[in-house]
Amino acid sequence: MRIAVLGGGPGGYVAAIRAAQLGAEVTIIEKEALGGTCLNVGCIPTKVLLHTAELYSHMKEVNDIGLVVEKVGLDWDKLQERKNNVVKQLVDGVKALLNSNKVKIMHGRGHFISKNQLEVQLTDEGKEIIDFDYAIVAVGSESTKIPIEGATLENVINSDEALSLEEIPKSICIIGGGVIGTEFASIYSRLGSKVTVVEMLPNILNTMDQEIVQYVEHELEKNKVEIKTNTKVKAIKEDKGLLEVSISYDNTETKIQAEKVLIATGRKPSTDHVGLKEIGIKLNGKAIDINKKMQTNINNIYAIGDCTGGIMLAHVASAQGIVAAETIMGEEATIDFKTIPSCVYTKPEIATVGLTEEEAKTAGYNVKTGKFPFMANGKSLIMQETEGMVKFVADAKTGEVLGLHIAGPRATDMIAEGSLAIRLEATIDEIITTIHGHPTVSEAVLEAAHDVYDSCIHVVKR
Amino acid sequence: MRIAVLGGGPGGYVAAIRAAQLGAEVTIIEKEALGGTCLNVGCIPTKVLLHTAELYSHMKEVNDIGLVVEKVGLDWDKLQERKNNVVKQLVDGVKALLNSNKVKIMHGRGHFISKNQLEVQLTDEGKEIIDFDYAIVAVGSESTKIPIEGATLENVINSDEALSLEEIPKSICIIGGGVIGTEFASIYSRLGSKVTVVEMLPNILNTMDQEIVQYVEHELEKNKVEIKTNTKVKAIKEDKGLLEVSISYDNTETKIQAEKVLIATGRKPSTDHVGLKEIGIKLNGKAIDINKKMQTNINNIYAIGDCTGGIMLAHVASAQGIVAAETIMGEEATIDFKTIPSCVYTKPEIATVGLTEEEAKTAGYNVKTGKFPFMANGKSLIMQETEGMVKFVADAKTGEVLGLHIAGPRATDMIAEGSLAIRLEATIDEIITTIHGHPTVSEAVLEAAHDVYDSCIHVVKR
Repeated sequence: MRIAVLGGGPGGYVAAIRAAQLGAEVTIIEKEALGGTCLNVGCIPTKVLLHTAELYSHMKEVNDIGLVVEKVGLDWDKLQERKNNVVKQLVDGVKALLNSNKVKIMHGRGHFISKNQLEVQLTDEGKEIIDFDYAIVAVGSESTKIPIEGATLENVINSDEALSLEEIPKSICIIGGGVIGTEFASIYSRLGSKVTVVEMLPNILNTMDQEIVQYVEHELEKNKVEIKTNTKVKAIKEDKGLLEVSISYDNTETKIQAEKVLIATGRKPSTDHVGLKEIGIKLNGKAIDINKKMQTNINNIYAIGDCTGGIMLAHVASAQGIVAAETIMGEEATIDFKTIPSCVYTKPEIATVGLTEEEAKTAGYNVKTGKFPFMANGKSLIMQETEGMVKFVADAKTGEVLGLHIAGPRATDMIAEGSLAIRLEATIDEIITTIHGHPTVSEAVLEAAHDVYDSCIHVVKR
Repeated sequence: MRIAVLGGGPGGYVAAIRAAQLGAEVTIIEKEALGGTCLNVGCIPTKVLLHTAELYSHMKEVNDIGLVVEKVGLDWDKLQERKNNVVKQLVDGVKALLNSNKVKIMHGRGHFISKNQLEVQLTDEGKEIIDFDYAIVAVGSESTKIPIEGATLENVINSDEALSLEEIPKSICIIGGGVIGTEFASIYSRLGSKVTVVEMLPNILNTMDQEIVQYVEHELEKNKVEIKTNTKVKAIKEDKGLLEVSISYDNTETKIQAEKVLIATGRKPSTDHVGLKEIGIKLNGKAIDINKKMQTNINNIYAIGDCTGGIMLAHVASAQGIVAAETIMGEEATIDFKTIPSCVYTKPEIATVGLTEEEAKTAGYNVKTGKFPFMANGKSLIMQETEGMVKFVADAKTGEVLGLHIAGPRATDMIAEGSLAIRLEATIDEIITTIHGHPTVSEAVLEAAHDVYDSCIHVVKR
């Protein structure tokens, strides 16, 4: 079985490896660097910057715990070098994985010329035709541009560029308060930039439970980030070496000055110029239309990840890649897409899975929630990370866990318990009767479950 | 319903609160400080010391990630003060919780004088008799002493004392390589003491999966801890202001010199002097005999926690406390004791739940394991915490998760996924089809599950 995978990101390379494990002869085509957006200009490099930025600002608090740290500085060049090294190490890792699974790697731009052929314009030089029995399209996404005056000015940047600035900007205006905008606000505010976030919607991280989001909002504001919601950007102009962003709130226009303007208004599928329409693959706007098995309208062509629209997350792409590869290879493949966690790597971390309280109500459930603040959790106190809370959303009738929402220490890892609970249709009672270690941060999850039945132990009754 | 709870540790105070929530009139009797061993001289203060000790030694590595930290020192007095403050805050918290639930707190030494009466020798002065319908015995445990020469010398200490030393000892010999001994070895070696651990058994943390334990062993050795296993202690003597510990390995005697000797050979139930035998409560050695509902041989008297022997862990005591309280109050109470996690708060952290590979084989299972090293996990690389691995133990026939064993970052919180899996009799396939976020440490759990079926994505094939 010959399988061509177009795109070497976390969707494509995982699909390629899984298919190869199952015996396929796989070729993967990547136009830039293996690992795609995620490894090169997304998840990984942002987390490298966040990690150092957080430890840097945490240094202000360590005298309280008995450390004596007198001189703390930041070496931006070193941090950039580290970021590049981590990315390189992981990209090299992907290459080694593909090689060890005998996946053929081609560097170049591929486009479909028929239902069984791709033409690749090689990066080195020349062209090559690849014949395939099945193809998996994993061409990813790219930053959207906004059609406003000044969007192409020199210091107006996208998230790729925001990762590799030559120096820490004195000021930065971030347009868009989604996950990307919020993470960059966290990075640069901790590193000393004056940060303003402009968001058109009523809240930052607008799709998430706002009771959870407020903790990150507070933290950003503590770091002097100005958050302007319900606010539209009208234009960007240059003014004496700075950028001037005209914004409008409640019909009143004001201006923000900043050294850099980061446009973080979202991403769109990168489905142009790969021959999709030409061979008759059905698109939905820019997104490739797929069924539950990741199959496009053309039987032998599958598509996964950001280019299929929907939830643009690396772990979704990887999960879809496994389903596509296994389906093609004749396995019964399923993934439970209700279990998708969403993570924001701020401090406190945010992680959520399943339905929000609002979503559950809209879906017709009689909803009960259970909450527990990290302020009352011993381990969090020890770690100096008491900001945040755990919130369960449950079906009042059956006790089934519908959603878990966490802002707090280690949230992005603890959310796995919530995903598994949803995967197994667990009830709150089953969470309660599972022993959680002491002293751990995860005790807060247990307590929030208790709180669904007002049987929380560690909350002072009013 | 009048319930008397004897002992205010994590078993007793949780039982008291739960019983009060359900409408009982509860009196709790504590002879020392609320919170018991756990809060005052156990889990909590050790974790405070560990937290600072780890951050202190981590400071040596932060230049690699772009921080410039030139002067790092440790303020032992400040750390002691912080430890005391954290303990005080949590103890005050327990008091507030009990008060808000209208539990009557009595400070004093209680002992049974009948099946329905306790006599309390009040700490202040005087005596009081408490009549009860039900009692819950939660009197905890104490450090064992070893019957060797020199065990009572001045600088021979137990774990309580090891928490509050006036200064960091230049050298310390720790007798016993269990959880307590290992955590203190981690603390003092990071703070600069020359540490030797003497363990009679073939391994430190001998009951745990040794593939997992090796990572902590390596880390201790990196911090110059000498670990002497299969080694017996013969005697302790004073010698020119130091202590000299005579040890025997393979019939050869040698000596270790140290400023302090910490005896951490285990704990035993504190069941003397509380009138148990006198009213006919059945003991098993020092441990109180209980059934699955925590009931002793006397119908209206229950017992929970360390004083019942078994697994001496705070979270077990709390879980037992809830079962006892709910049973007394007529509720159908269950806790799944297969889900008990065991945690060691070293760096890397260790956390395990369920059966080890050995235990599963002994129990007659056809065992399959799945492993994944944190070295291959992106988030761990970013966090500079790549030491460790995840190991699943599964039933080859059904795929059921029998055990999860983790050494690595955030292990003590991630183990909750394993506990829930065991609680719900989940299969490895159900773990695999649950989406784990990227980039998270918990991806390593997913990968280890994949590895059970040799379908691990991120491991280079040999």
